[in-house]
Amino acid sequence: MTSPGATGQATEWLAGLDRALAGSDIAAALALFGDECYWRDLVAFTWNVKTLEGRDEIAAMLRGVLLSVCPAGWRLDGEAVEHDGVVEAWLQFETAAGRGCGHLRLKSGRCWTLLTTLRELKGHEEQAGETRPKGVEHGVHPGRRSWQEERSARQAALGSTEQPYCLIVGGGQGGIALAARLKRLDVPALVVERHPRAGDSWRARYKSLCLHDPVWYDHLPYLPFPDHWPVFTPKDKMGDWLESYTRIMELDYWGGTECRSARYDDGAGEWVVEVLREGRPVTLRPRQLVLATGMSGMPEVPAFAGAERFRGEQMHSSAYRSGEAYRGKQCVVVGSNNSAHDICADLFENGATVTMLQRSSTLVARSETLMTVGWGKLFSESALRAGITTERADLTLASLPFKVMAQLQKPVYEQVARMDAPFYEGLRKAGFLLDFGEDGTGLSLKYMRRGSGYYIDVGASALIADGSIRLRSPVTVASIGERSVTLDDGSELPADLIVYATGYGSMSGWAARLISPQVAEQVGLCWGLGSGTAKDPGPWEGELRNMWKPTAHPGLWFHGGNLQQSRSFSLYLALQIKARQAGLATPVYGLGPVHHAG
Amino acid sequence: MTSPGATGQATEWLAGLDRALAGSDIAAALALFGDECYWRDLVAFTWNVKTLEGRDEIAAMLRGVLLSVCPAGWRLDGEAVEHDGVVEAWLQFETAAGRGCGHLRLKSGRCWTLLTTLRELKGHEEQAGETRPKGVEHGVHPGRRSWQEERSARQAALGSTEQPYCLIVGGGQGGIALAARLKRLDVPALVVERHPRAGDSWRARYKSLCLHDPVWYDHLPYLPFPDHWPVFTPKDKMGDWLESYTRIMELDYWGGTECRSARYDDGAGEWVVEVLREGRPVTLRPRQLVLATGMSGMPEVPAFAGAERFRGEQMHSSAYRSGEAYRGKQCVVVGSNNSAHDICADLFENGATVTMLQRSSTLVARSETLMTVGWGKLFSESALRAGITTERADLTLASLPFKVMAQLQKPVYEQVARMDAPFYEGLRKAGFLLDFGEDGTGLSLKYMRRGSGYYIDVGASALIADGSIRLRSPVTVASIGERSVTLDDGSELPADLIVYATGYGSMSGWAARLISPQVAEQVGLCWGLGSGTAKDPGPWEGELRNMWKPTAHPGLWFHGGNLQQSRSFSLYLALQIKARQAGLATPVYGLGPVHHAG
Repeated sequence: MTSPGATGQATEWLAGLDRALAGSDIAAALALFGDECYWRDLVAFTWNVKTLEGRDEIAAMLRGVLLSVCPAGWRLDGEAVEHDGVVEAWLQFETAAGRGCGHLRLKSGRCWTLLTTLRELKGHEEQAGETRPKGVEHGVHPGRRSWQEERSARQAALGSTEQPYCLIVGGGQGGIALAARLKRLDVPALVVERHPRAGDSWRARYKSLCLHDPVWYDHLPYLPFPDHWPVFTPKDKMGDWLESYTRIMELDYWGGTECRSARYDDGAGEWVVEVLREGRPVTLRPRQLVLATGMSGMPEVPAFAGAERFRGEQMHSSAYRSGEAYRGKQCVVVGSNNSAHDICADLFENGATVTMLQRSSTLVARSETLMTVGWGKLFSESALRAGITTERADLTLASLPFKVMAQLQKPVYEQVARMDAPFYEGLRKAGFLLDFGEDGTGLSLKYMRRGSGYYIDVGASALIADGSIRLRSPVTVASIGERSVTLDDGSELPADLIVYATGYGSMSGWAARLISPQVAEQVGLCWGLGSGTAKDPGPWEGELRNMWKPTAHPGLWFHGGNLQQSRSFSLYLALQIKARQAGLATPVYGLGPVHHAG
Repeated sequence: MTSPGATGQATEWLAGLDRALAGSDIAAALALFGDECYWRDLVAFTWNVKTLEGRDEIAAMLRGVLLSVCPAGWRLDGEAVEHDGVVEAWLQFETAAGRGCGHLRLKSGRCWTLLTTLRELKGHEEQAGETRPKGVEHGVHPGRRSWQEERSARQAALGSTEQPYCLIVGGGQGGIALAARLKRLDVPALVVERHPRAGDSWRARYKSLCLHDPVWYDHLPYLPFPDHWPVFTPKDKMGDWLESYTRIMELDYWGGTECRSARYDDGAGEWVVEVLREGRPVTLRPRQLVLATGMSGMPEVPAFAGAERFRGEQMHSSAYRSGEAYRGKQCVVVGSNNSAHDICADLFENGATVTMLQRSSTLVARSETLMTVGWGKLFSESALRAGITTERADLTLASLPFKVMAQLQKPVYEQVARMDAPFYEGLRKAGFLLDFGEDGTGLSLKYMRRGSGYYIDVGASALIADGSIRLRSPVTVASIGERSVTLDDGSELPADLIVYATGYGSMSGWAARLISPQVAEQVGLCWGLGSGTAKDPGPWEGELRNMWKPTAHPGLWFHGGNLQQSRSFSLYLALQIKARQAGLATPVYGLGPVHHAG
């Protein structure tokens, strides 16, 4: 796959870009890009997370940033490769503010996709490897404090005599990964989390939960799982890992702390955040506020008529723990995504009679199949053997603009449909409504567009196919009685338990609740690409709205997503926050227009 | 350094060895070895830790083991290198029982040193990477237990309804590293430790303590420190790391558990061990008992006349915490090794008047110098950049038989003396008695011979040179008065505090205390090479006595040493224990001649 021709082409292209940018010759730069072209920039050029689509957008961006960014030192990192007429190469460069790396795809000698990412800020590099701290000051230092004394003093000061520069609300994997990045960048940061212990947000979920993503995808920054770690981490083990990680990384983490409210003090340029720390009110004044409250933040339960009359148990899926108490009971699960499937399977395994209510079509993909055709190419033992480190895998993912990803994923799901035809046939026969996304672009795109609407099959689909889990589809709940659920087709199901696996609200709901509806309105929707598909209204933005990048409100940031995103994007968010703490100029290019639902 | 000639030589030599061993032609094998030659075997050939010195010992070993070991599949691992006429190569091989790797040094085409080490047992490989567990059983499994339930059930069963196959007494880095290895090998093991929490054996030491070995030397197996970890880990941070590690590796670890006694039940072939677990008596019946009570196990305090009269404070160095209480006080520290120096410096920094009593000459080496001429070649960032992984570094260390190490270390310490001449001159002028070992072979050898007699300078030597720490040398304590210490030169020192930095007893002292003086007598001394130098009586054994290998008592093992040893040798000890648990034949070759098998 590597070929001198490919490396030559990439080298020549990069030299051309270097010349054009160094000479501020935007026309010459544009001539290097093909008719279909994308430049995805993660903070390096735009101080933003931004995909420029087409030469016009690229030209506008370059006109806006070139003089301040001063890109230079472009060079290939390793040999280029060629595959199906596309030359691919890794590259490095620097800017006035920092050092970056990126990725290039050429078609017929012109750029199809370019990725530029900021890796570190000059003068604010992480102290690691050769530059790690010594840990002890050799020599004589009267009054020296031990590590433990320093650590205790810092913990006592933070939030009382010293304010965190950055406050992270939410101590799941997102908040923890970001806090670790900020720690390494020497930014005083504090995580507040309502659960008592780090990891509790996983521990509190239903008993049978294991991560649906494989281990290679799930590493946190800096401290990878050891190599005996199971492929699919059980939730309590994940909780314990997060707790140990928090301690090992010396994060400042307040468990048992509820964030009550936050308001922005315009004059001071800081937030005034009221928290209850183990019941005691504390006021914090951070400059930066990150909501890392999770995509699975606030549970959403539809208002079904008669729910208040129900005499059995009813709960949102987030409150479900285990099926043990429901042997012989009649259980109805509303919804057909990951949690709904896991909960139905758990109830069935525990001897309940369980019915799933599918309200609309669902993307189902077998876990094994995804390992083969999806993740596996980047996140697996064989990827590691091929030299694809976790960082390389993250960057490879990042190198695909979402429009390109959609193009590439369609044939993958056509292949999935062929590979697993009998599997899908079984589900269809049972009445299950399937999709691969409205446009057939599959799981990743559906996840980016709406964060819901799918199940990664780890066994429940077979139970649906053979009738062990009863299925009603497509239906919705018309009303609820004392011991029954009436569906919109008029039929009535007896019910001792109703589980609402009906999903979660948008992250901006947290902004509304913690800050104000006005601020939530000001920043608009979070997540979603603007694809104009269900639950992802347009216009097209081409990046996740408001995630890991400046919002329309100063000092307000959103962070979240799965473990891969928490790991990968925490870097870009941390660098943006570090730059502000260090007082660097951070002119944001292309702050997105604000979008609202509908 | 790599050269086709070297690789050719090594390949040819290895093919010759393969032919000779496959044909049981011991004479042909011996012809491949030079006049000065060593074969160091770690468990692969001998089920022992053994250095065979010279052709006769090698011949005897081969005659004893060849038919059962069946070595085969010898091949080079990478290219050979040549340096000063010595060809060096890494190699791999297998035996009837397992797979191994090793290292070869040729002089003029014949073997000077050969290392063979067992890496894994066939059919009992660690489940990692490609073979890691899935973590979840996909599909339907009524009554399935979650990871947390399995873990809790196992913890409840171990030591009550289920006996650990291996009991490890002592939960410092040694016990923890071994337990982690056994966990990966699926051997039910339990660690009992008198301190409440894992890591407390570090936390309980004096406040200013940091590891004297650099971080690259100190990794535990499987989970290396992240790359921002300080060079010299502060003791509380080390304690926290060990605690997190214990949890992450899911070790069965009973803190707050005192081992009261152990006796061997010959009939049952198991130990009967009485422990007090948080005050509650529990009887354990393991097949294998590992004493990992540490080289710094039982404090030794010489019986000085009049000590009982002393009205100030007196304590062994292991009980010393901090100098804060001794501002303006008169303090006497007996001893001149690592702890004595650290404690003197700490007292001085805290404003005490402190006198060190040096009883005999001490090896002092500057930490920076050791990084340059010692550790640094194997354990450092530059070593890592040169491709020397931690495992490679451990194997490189292991590849040096102790006689060869002594030869190689002498010129190193001649260089150290030259490099740091003004430093040593300053100490000498202050009256400090210096040595580099009786035969000038330096720190590592002194450590292997007696585990004492040295200071790795991190600043205290300058305080001695400039008189900040007062020095009396060579002296010993003649008697102790109510508020003074009288020395053997007749002089008297006022004293509010006396710290006995007088070292620790041999590990076999633990065997005497926990098991019986008879068993301690039966197994004999632990540690030491038999060099015939001070505190290391002969005859020459060429390996550390009784460490990580079968002893003269069935099912009794000793494990300990610094972090490098704990990491490196825990593998060989774990494989020996696994082999026994799996019921493999483990014929031990060459059980130490000074001990007699029962």
